[in-house]
Order: sequence, then structure tokens, then C-alpha cells
Amino acid sequence: MNEETYRPTPRTRMKRKPDRAAYDPRTVHAIIDAGLVCHVGYVIDGQPYVTPTAHWRVATRVYWHGSSASRMLRAQKGGIPVCLTVSHLDGLVLARSGFHHSVNYRSAMLLGSADVIEGDDAKSAALKAFVDRVMPGRWQELRPPTKQEIKATTILGMDIAEASAKVRTGGVIDEEEDYDWDVWAGVVPIRAHIGAPEDDDRLKPGTPRPDYLAKFRLG
Amino acid sequence: MNEETYRPTPRTRMKRKPDRAAYDPRTVHAIIDAGLVCHVGYVIDGQPYVTPTAHWRVATRVYWHGSSASRMLRAQKGGIPVCLTVSHLDGLVLARSGFHHSVNYRSAMLLGSADVIEGDDAKSAALKAFVDRVMPGRWQELRPPTKQEIKATTILGMDIAEASAKVRTGGVIDEEEDYDWDVWAGVVPIRAHIGAPEDDDRLKPGTPRPDYLAKFRLG
Repeated sequence: MNEETYRPTPRTRMKRKPDRAAYDPRTVHAIIDAGLVCHVGYVIDGQPYVTPTAHWRVATRVYWHGSSASRMLRAQKGGIPVCLTVSHLDGLVLARSGFHHSVNYRSAMLLGSADVIEGDDAKSAALKAFVDRVMPGRWQELRPPTKQEIKATTILGMDIAEASAKVRTGGVIDEEEDYDWDVWAGVVPIRAHIGAPEDDDRLKPGTPRPDYLAKFRLG
Repeated sequence: MNEETYRPTPRTRMKRKPDRAAYDPRTVHAIIDAGLVCHVGYVIDGQPYVTPTAHWRVATRVYWHGSSASRMLRAQKGGIPVCLTVSHLDGLVLARSGFHHSVNYRSAMLLGSADVIEGDDAKSAALKAFVDRVMPGRWQELRPPTKQEIKATTILGMDIAEASAKVRTGGVIDEEEDYDWDVWAGVVPIRAHIGAPEDDDRLKPGTPRPDYLAKFRLG
């Protein structure tokens, strides 16, 4: 990878609205990291499937995981082409004509193929990275994984071979002659709201809520 | 379609965790309708692509749209197989072992192939359904679409031929021997938060905020 940018390819270069496109790792990575769940696309017998799944990133690799019995993971681990998309809906843009209605959003699309993380230590390290990226420090507090649990978990990794980001921000853009039209126009912001943590019913009395809970953010 | 259920097929029937699966239209449709943006998967030259896009549903058909110049839409309108997935992240489930960490979510996966909505009247009706499903009554307040705008808009529709929903709700489920482990466990709820509407800078003075703005919900 070029250090400055994910080099756009004919498959990722945006022809329409190129002003909304970005290929720099900083933008792409920020969009990936702001989401907990991505949508992974893969093909079986010519049929595309899109599966939502939790993901995490380490440098220029993304990871996702699941049960070793999962059809999705079994299909993907053969090195078939994969598309991993992360998107955030940031708001509705309500214009004076239907045509200029839009949404504010950030999305990143990554193309590549997945490989299987092999070896208990490598798998354990990947799972630690996953837990700690969401709740830093939690991994070491947990009951450690058993060999059986690690075996039952398949972890896939993918080098971010081709990537593009697409971002729309800002307000309404109407036709000049429409600004006089008698209708409300503006933006309705949307964001992920993190609610108050709910203690497990069987929580040991006196167990404190860790600081990382209050710091957790999404989007 | 059977009136009672989307009949599960080998492609949509869940083998793992079948207790999380649902195939009834009520569950599937509710998940579709709770989201504004879906992820559409399609294949070009063997490569899957996953594109986030706004969607809407009328009965057992889903729709999405875009510029007539869009590569995505041009690829999809040839009747190729498509997967349309809608997902909602409802919370993090933080267990006492990494293995039992999970997320609460609702997702619906629809398989089918897209057809192009033809004719100005049909296209206009579809766009009205889109705007009014988000902001009921807004369409009639807008500056009406021009023939040129309708021409520049491609709308795709897809019969929900095969569909499945997957839902996880509830709290932590740990191994019995782990409940004594000294770590916080519980659920962190997540939901889409709708912020206060932001008036367009060029809004005509005195333009009221329509009631549908306050009623808008997602998730």
C-alpha cells in the first residue's frame, strides 16, 4: 500500500460526485473504526449474500469472526472475493424538491479476499484486539478463553487491498429558483445513542461499573 | 408468496441458532421498515459489492433508487441476483468470557432480482411512497418533480422472493461456572437518536416546522 493513500482502482474510483470520495487511510480508517458492525458481501453459486457482522481493524487489516460452523465464514475463508462495507447515517437532508433530498453519511467500501487466522496465540491476540478496541482493558478482566472456545471460533482477516470512502456532510442544496418555495427545509441529524448500561441479573453484588463503559462511543 | 410466511429455502434457512430466525412477513417487514438505509449486494465480474442506499417497502416489494448514471444501478437493473440486507444494532452484550460476548440486533436478508420501474407516473408514485414513508405528507408540500428529474432518477424494485430475519434480544448468557467471575457483565443498549431539526440557512422567515418532523423515528 502507498502510505499516503489507498490507490483508487477502476473498481473503487468514484465517477459520480467525486467530491464526496476519499481514498486516504485516515478517512477510510476513521469510518471503519466508528462502526461496530459492518456488512460483508460474498458470493456463493453466483448469488450475493450480505451479512452484518462485528468487525475490527488493526493497521491496514480488518477482521471479523464467528462460529467455526458458520456457513458465511466457511464460504469466505476459501479466499473468494469479499466486499466489506461500513456505513454511518448522519442525517436526513430535506430539500424543497424531492429530487434534492439526500442523506448525510459516511461509508467505506473495502475489496479484498479473506484469510483464516491460524494458531491459538494468533487467534487469542486477534480476539483481545477486538474486545479491547470496544472496551479498552476488558480482555484481561474476563475469564480467559479455553482451547475449545478458540477452536470453535473462526477469525478472518483481510488486507485492505482496495478501499474507498464516501462522505456527504452539510446542508440543503436546492435549485436557485426553489428557495422561494413554501416548505420547511433543513437537516435532521441522526446519531448512535449509547444508553445507560444494564447490570446483568446475576451480577455479583458490589461489582463496579468499569470506566470504559462510560467512555464507549459509536459513530 | 405464502401469506403466513416467507418460505425458507436452503439459501435462507438458518441452520445455526434457529431460535434467532424468523420468516414471517410481520417480523421481516418491521425490520425493513425500521431502517432508512439498507446494504445492497450485487456481483460484477465475480466481485461482490455492497452499497449502502436508502430503501422503502410497499407490501412485499422493496425499492431503492439513485442517479440514472449510477454504476450500481446500471449493474443491478439487468435482473442479476441481488441481496438486500437491513440491520439494526440494539446493544452490546458483555459477558464474563470473551466467547459469550454478543450483540443484540435485528436483521433481515432479502434475496431476489431487481427490475426497473418504468413510466413517469409509476416512478413519481414510487418516489412519493419513499418521501411519505419517512415524512408522511411531505411529498405534496414539495416543489413537484420535473420530467427531467424523473428521467434522471432510476428506481429499482424487487419482489421479496426469499427472506429471513435474525433477531437477538435479552441479556448475558454465561457458562454456569463463570457467574462467580469478578467482572462487570450486562447489556449496553444502542439506538438511533434523532436530533433537533436544523433549519436551512435560507429558510423563508416564519416557515413552521411540520409535525411529521417531531414524529420521525428510526430503528
